[in-house]
Amino acid sequence: MPKISNKGQQMPASPIRKLTPFAERAKSEGKKVYHLNIGQPDIETPAVMLDAIKNIDFKVWAYTASEGTVSYRDALTDYYNKLGYNISPEDILVTTGGSEAIIISLMTCLNQGEEVIIPEPFYANYNAYACQSDSVIKPILSVIDNSFALPPIAEFEKAITSKTRAIMICNPNNPTGYLYSKQEFEDLKTLALKHDLFIIADEAYREFCYDDKQFFSPMHFEGIENNVIIIDTVSKRYSACGARLGCMITKNKEVIATALKFAQARLSPGMVEQIAGTAATIYTPDSYFTEVNHEYAERRDILVNALNQMEGVFCPNPGGAFYVVARFPIDNADKFCQWMLEEFSYDNQTVMLAPASGFYATPGVGENELRLAYVLNKPDLKKAMICLEEALKVYPGRIVTVQNEIIHTN
Amino acid sequence: MPKISNKGQQMPASPIRKLTPFAERAKSEGKKVYHLNIGQPDIETPAVMLDAIKNIDFKVWAYTASEGTVSYRDALTDYYNKLGYNISPEDILVTTGGSEAIIISLMTCLNQGEEVIIPEPFYANYNAYACQSDSVIKPILSVIDNSFALPPIAEFEKAITSKTRAIMICNPNNPTGYLYSKQEFEDLKTLALKHDLFIIADEAYREFCYDDKQFFSPMHFEGIENNVIIIDTVSKRYSACGARLGCMITKNKEVIATALKFAQARLSPGMVEQIAGTAATIYTPDSYFTEVNHEYAERRDILVNALNQMEGVFCPNPGGAFYVVARFPIDNADKFCQWMLEEFSYDNQTVMLAPASGFYATPGVGENELRLAYVLNKPDLKKAMICLEEALKVYPGRIVTVQNEIIHTN
Ligand SMILES: Cc1ncc(COP(=O)(O)O)c(C=O)c1O
Ligand SMILES: Cc1ncc(COP(=O)(O)O)c(C=O)c1O
Repeated sequence: MPKISNKGQQMPASPIRKLTPFAERAKSEGKKVYHLNIGQPDIETPAVMLDAIKNIDFKVWAYTASEGTVSYRDALTDYYNKLGYNISPEDILVTTGGSEAIIISLMTCLNQGEEVIIPEPFYANYNAYACQSDSVIKPILSVIDNSFALPPIAEFEKAITSKTRAIMICNPNNPTGYLYSKQEFEDLKTLALKHDLFIIADEAYREFCYDDKQFFSPMHFEGIENNVIIIDTVSKRYSACGARLGCMITKNKEVIATALKFAQARLSPGMVEQIAGTAATIYTPDSYFTEVNHEYAERRDILVNALNQMEGVFCPNPGGAFYVVARFPIDNADKFCQWMLEEFSYDNQTVMLAPASGFYATPGVGENELRLAYVLNKPDLKKAMICLEEALKVYPGRIVTVQNEIIHTN
Repeated sequence: MPKISNKGQQMPASPIRKLTPFAERAKSEGKKVYHLNIGQPDIETPAVMLDAIKNIDFKVWAYTASEGTVSYRDALTDYYNKLGYNISPEDILVTTGGSEAIIISLMTCLNQGEEVIIPEPFYANYNAYACQSDSVIKPILSVIDNSFALPPIAEFEKAITSKTRAIMICNPNNPTGYLYSKQEFEDLKTLALKHDLFIIADEAYREFCYDDKQFFSPMHFEGIENNVIIIDTVSKRYSACGARLGCMITKNKEVIATALKFAQARLSPGMVEQIAGTAATIYTPDSYFTEVNHEYAERRDILVNALNQMEGVFCPNPGGAFYVVARFPIDNADKFCQWMLEEFSYDNQTVMLAPASGFYATPGVGENELRLAYVLNKPDLKKAMICLEEALKVYPGRIVTVQNEIIHTN
């Protein structure tokens, strides 16, 4: 029997999916499972977007241009220019989800073994994209006690080697929800220019910023145009994850021309998606975003308040996205999550969570942290919080810290 | 300014698209251009498939499972089992087009620098997939005078090295239209078992076989299950290229599990596409395929007859797909194609063709060959043939062979 490749063996399996069999068993036993472990929003897709699908009127479902249709790139250009990105349609490559935009960016910018610096914890699939593109992630620790702000630039300087080619920043962040400030990007800009690095900014959650905080993009800078690549997607913006519609944006002509070659090989992004994406981009009313943001902000408040009221739990109050990473008084998050599904139930309910360790590249870090996604309606979210609080009371691996001393209880 | 990667530089640009600017100029000058250069069928997508899109009734356009929905994989399983593939849904990974299935297969099976043997001429994008996956294509020449049949197995034996891991066969073939026989696959089976190689069979054109010829798939064999990977797509089957919906099929558990890891990284195939694909797979009436095949067979006859009646032109009569590769009395196909667009017109019309050299890996081969796709309706196809015939009469680089002597005319 022929062997599979080394890369195939090394590709990481999704860390979030490891727990799925336990969740399925719990459900088959009749338990209600609240899913705080996934990034699939429950929010409705804008009606204008779904209507565009229902109203298609072509006879041949044809390939589009590899770089995307003219209409969609025109619509996107307007959208980004309203945000102050100052781009033209030629700066956009339409991709099959933000996922493909990331893979193409890494393949375009990094040689085998070259390095991209990413603050950890980071979106776990970055590991898979790095593996697939033969690049190496150099993690820099951002710490929960500092709300997962950008680590000091000195830490970046320390991590830079002759192989460093890029810095990747997800803003607002998955998994931490942290919203990076203009100042933090200024620091990154100086660093990138000094060392001639790409800044790959993953803005999948751009639309979700709370407390009237301003979203900042490196596209807003002048003088660094050739270094900046933006990753975007309609997945979260319009709650249209199944559309597989994203894009990469850069004013670097060489990068976009090279990315196009990768795009030509796979022929075309989806045609119906681009029709729907065009409609969504042009016609989604501002009220849609106001409402959705209001909803998410309320959920975040429920979640963060509930968590911080639980004994021994600490959760920063993040400015964006729909995730938090919180610290729990537990021995090991993997064990805890599995226990929640296998052993625990409260009123025949339990909660599925994501161990934060899957989002750290450094082994051993974040073992008492969990990522929670607030993609449930408020009543369910409240029930999930009660459930979690009850679970922590009886979890056998509970740890109580008294003035820096660690004491096992239960 | 940071540099782009070596791989990015090496990625081949689409050889077919090179001529596009000339075609655009010709059109802007008011010339009618008949496109025989592309693989985008003009045939209508089945109504059941388009209706499925119009009838969607979900509120959240969500991710599906990375391996594809249960409904779609069930429908595909029935479809393949009617063809005698004897598979279960777990043997299928739904992909974003056949393109993604090929890239994932190569990444799964080949280490960097390892080799896949492919008879040439072959689908030009295979070069891009090989570049992207760091694998190396070893071409073996199939010759026009033998209708592009499988090269002798002795040639494969000669090409096999310690790095050979797979043989890739596109059946029916793009660009030649050749339909491989059961006997040819028997020979490949023996070879694959002897050298422990994967057989990657790209069956994008499975549905298009003419003259009552039987389609054969290596999935029909017993005793080689762990070696066979099938690439498939709805692009040509349902004239639904813009759906970006394909799959890979294998009974090799390790291969499918590894491929799934690559699929998990990019999260999900398109959701609406899978709904449409399910409807198309279950409900497309047999009459659709009968009619489409009838239409293509008639077009092929028009094309092949017209070509063989032109002085100095030779075109084999292929058994499948909707392409032919023919030999022309010309000095250089690239020059000829450009001349057709830039200089020539007949009745204010011209024809856009694809130089076959772009489908050969060996330099210098096929320089007097063209690929023609019969994706035009019959009246237009006839007009295109007249145009081509007139062009050959006046092309300055025309070559006339008299008893093995080559004489330039014009
Ligand atoms: C940070 C981040 N980037 C990119 C993606 C990719 O999204 P998609 O491929 O659906 O556009 C996700 C999805 O969850 C994400 O969280
Ligand atoms: C031989 C062959 N394989 C694969 C493909 C990929 O098709 P898609 O990605 O549209 O499924 C094509 C498209 O033309 C093809 O000709």
